[in-house]
Amino acid sequence: MFSSTDHLMMARALRLAERGAYTTRPNPMVGCVLTRGDDIVGEGFHVKAGEPHAEVLALRAAGERAKGATAYVTLEPCAHVGKTGPCTDALIAAGVSRVVAAMRDPFPQVDGAGFEKLKAAGIAVESGLMEAQARALNRGWLSRIERGRPWLRVKLATSLDGRSALASGESKWISGEASRVDVHRWRARAGAILTGAGTVLMDDPSLTVRFDDDTAFVPPLRVVLDPGLATIARGRVREGNAPTLYIHAPDAKPPRGIEAQTASAPVIDGRFDLAAVLKLLAARDINEVQIEAGATLAGAFLAAGLVDEILLYVAPVLLGDRARPLFDGLHIDEMTQRLNLTIVESRRIGNDVRLLLQPKVEDAAAT
Amino acid sequence: MFSSTDHLMMARALRLAERGAYTTRPNPMVGCVLTRGDDIVGEGFHVKAGEPHAEVLALRAAGERAKGATAYVTLEPCAHVGKTGPCTDALIAAGVSRVVAAMRDPFPQVDGAGFEKLKAAGIAVESGLMEAQARALNRGWLSRIERGRPWLRVKLATSLDGRSALASGESKWISGEASRVDVHRWRARAGAILTGAGTVLMDDPSLTVRFDDDTAFVPPLRVVLDPGLATIARGRVREGNAPTLYIHAPDAKPPRGIEAQTASAPVIDGRFDLAAVLKLLAARDINEVQIEAGATLAGAFLAAGLVDEILLYVAPVLLGDRARPLFDGLHIDEMTQRLNLTIVESRRIGNDVRLLLQPKVEDAAAT
Repeated sequence: MFSSTDHLMMARALRLAERGAYTTRPNPMVGCVLTRGDDIVGEGFHVKAGEPHAEVLALRAAGERAKGATAYVTLEPCAHVGKTGPCTDALIAAGVSRVVAAMRDPFPQVDGAGFEKLKAAGIAVESGLMEAQARALNRGWLSRIERGRPWLRVKLATSLDGRSALASGESKWISGEASRVDVHRWRARAGAILTGAGTVLMDDPSLTVRFDDDTAFVPPLRVVLDPGLATIARGRVREGNAPTLYIHAPDAKPPRGIEAQTASAPVIDGRFDLAAVLKLLAARDINEVQIEAGATLAGAFLAAGLVDEILLYVAPVLLGDRARPLFDGLHIDEMTQRLNLTIVESRRIGNDVRLLLQPKVEDAAAT
Repeated sequence: MFSSTDHLMMARALRLAERGAYTTRPNPMVGCVLTRGDDIVGEGFHVKAGEPHAEVLALRAAGERAKGATAYVTLEPCAHVGKTGPCTDALIAAGVSRVVAAMRDPFPQVDGAGFEKLKAAGIAVESGLMEAQARALNRGWLSRIERGRPWLRVKLATSLDGRSALASGESKWISGEASRVDVHRWRARAGAILTGAGTVLMDDPSLTVRFDDDTAFVPPLRVVLDPGLATIARGRVREGNAPTLYIHAPDAKPPRGIEAQTASAPVIDGRFDLAAVLKLLAARDINEVQIEAGATLAGAFLAAGLVDEILLYVAPVLLGDRARPLFDGLHIDEMTQRLNLTIVESRRIGNDVRLLLQPKVEDAAAT
């Protein structure tokens, strides 16, 4: 169905889209390439919510040459009037003759309406080219729209023997310098960085994005799960240019005189209802959450089946059998209970190996 | 000093040498390429102890064209009469005009004597081209000759959370099928596969090399560390076409009526003197030992500082915090005591990641 040129152009549009990874939130990343024959006549990507969409930028770049062009878009063009005018109208007005989309937009106000509008105007519309890649790119946004909760990534650093810290709690510098730099890129992708009160007290992380160049990014929200608000007055997590949200138990009261964003989440048997915590963050337009916490909180999200991916930095070091485990509270007594994952990507980062893992999707044959 | 042709030809000689990896033991792997200008006129590798050396095979292939040729050899040609005649005489007789070696042969009966003999015959001799690669290739043989003990590799399979088995001891199938096939190639490189009585009783492994094609190999010696010879009459480790050696405490007596190779090794405070065990294996011409044992024995070798490399198959699975650690007996209380390693290679093997690690060589600046 799709030609090799189609694939090349969509791959280019996807790479363009990803350039908005640190800034488009809460909007999806979108890229657009306009072509006539094998020539690119315009391209663009959505940079920031409230600013023009990818299609509009590409059309501007193409000018008159948009007439009769093919538009490759990584997401169905919008048909509703959001903060900017609908892209479908702009594509029709410019005289584009064919639109190839990677995927339908599941957002209720679009959801096929963009395609319909284009077709009604006599434009040839095709969808589904490189859809898997497009879905992977916007997995955070899709999770929020389709599942009503953010995509949950757990970031961990581990020794070869599966230890995240010594028994004393000492955990700094398990992974190497290159890995620590790399983490900031993953933070910048996330709408929120989530941690627990224990980590704030023990490690005092700032959880901000720090780049050593002038790469633009929207500072992710820092979220501290702190049932009793014991840490609200302290810590580097309150410093810097990023907002901080404390999530507390319903019976805790934010102290007077301390200015801070707070929200209450339900507690079940003395523990936060983690699904409710995620729902609360989705309601605040968070697409992707990155957990940077200790073994207890990471283990609790994992045990609750809420983890969508694990970003694991494996450092070539042994910490011994007295050190702390990677996840607490994972009790497995038989091989059949083990948690199977898939290595989505493995890559050397400096002296470490970085693994991106996702829970294993069971074979169709097994269902 | 060395030209790009020199590098290409030596790389080829090294690849040829490695083709003997499963068969040359206890001899080193050696490859030889004979060239005139950019043309290869003959090549060969040492296939098996007792059979012709690489140089002789290459000279036979070249015939008259060896006259005036350059010989690339991965190891200094031998000057002594071993099971075959000295290679230096053959190179001189054939009229080779230049010999490029990757490294000097540290074997006491050679150790520069080969180079001297060639030079005395008017042949240009250069050494040190791709020496690091040549040393890595024969790290087992070099360890035995230079250190008087075999190169020690520990093979382990681990979950992401650093567990080798469940608390019940259940450990089968942590790593995937592709990794289990891969292990046989590493076994075939080794002169001995070493395990403990506990593993024989618990897992009953056969520890033989099993290929699914007709790749030739010399079966590695299977070595069981069994202080009291409790397992001598049982187990798959006695079946198959490979020899088995039981190493026991001095006070244990091999039972009558059971035919088996046995050897006694010193025991200190109720535990084997592991350095003495390795010395004993070197005396039996073992270049490389691969340990396939449980966390206790692997941890003991590691704690004794005797491990040269770790072959670690990391399976994308979580076994939980009740499961057994990768190494027992590694007690580390401060970060400065941690064991630092270097990832020599990381590679996807099926659904797993295979890491080859070596203890970190401290920076020269730090000494």
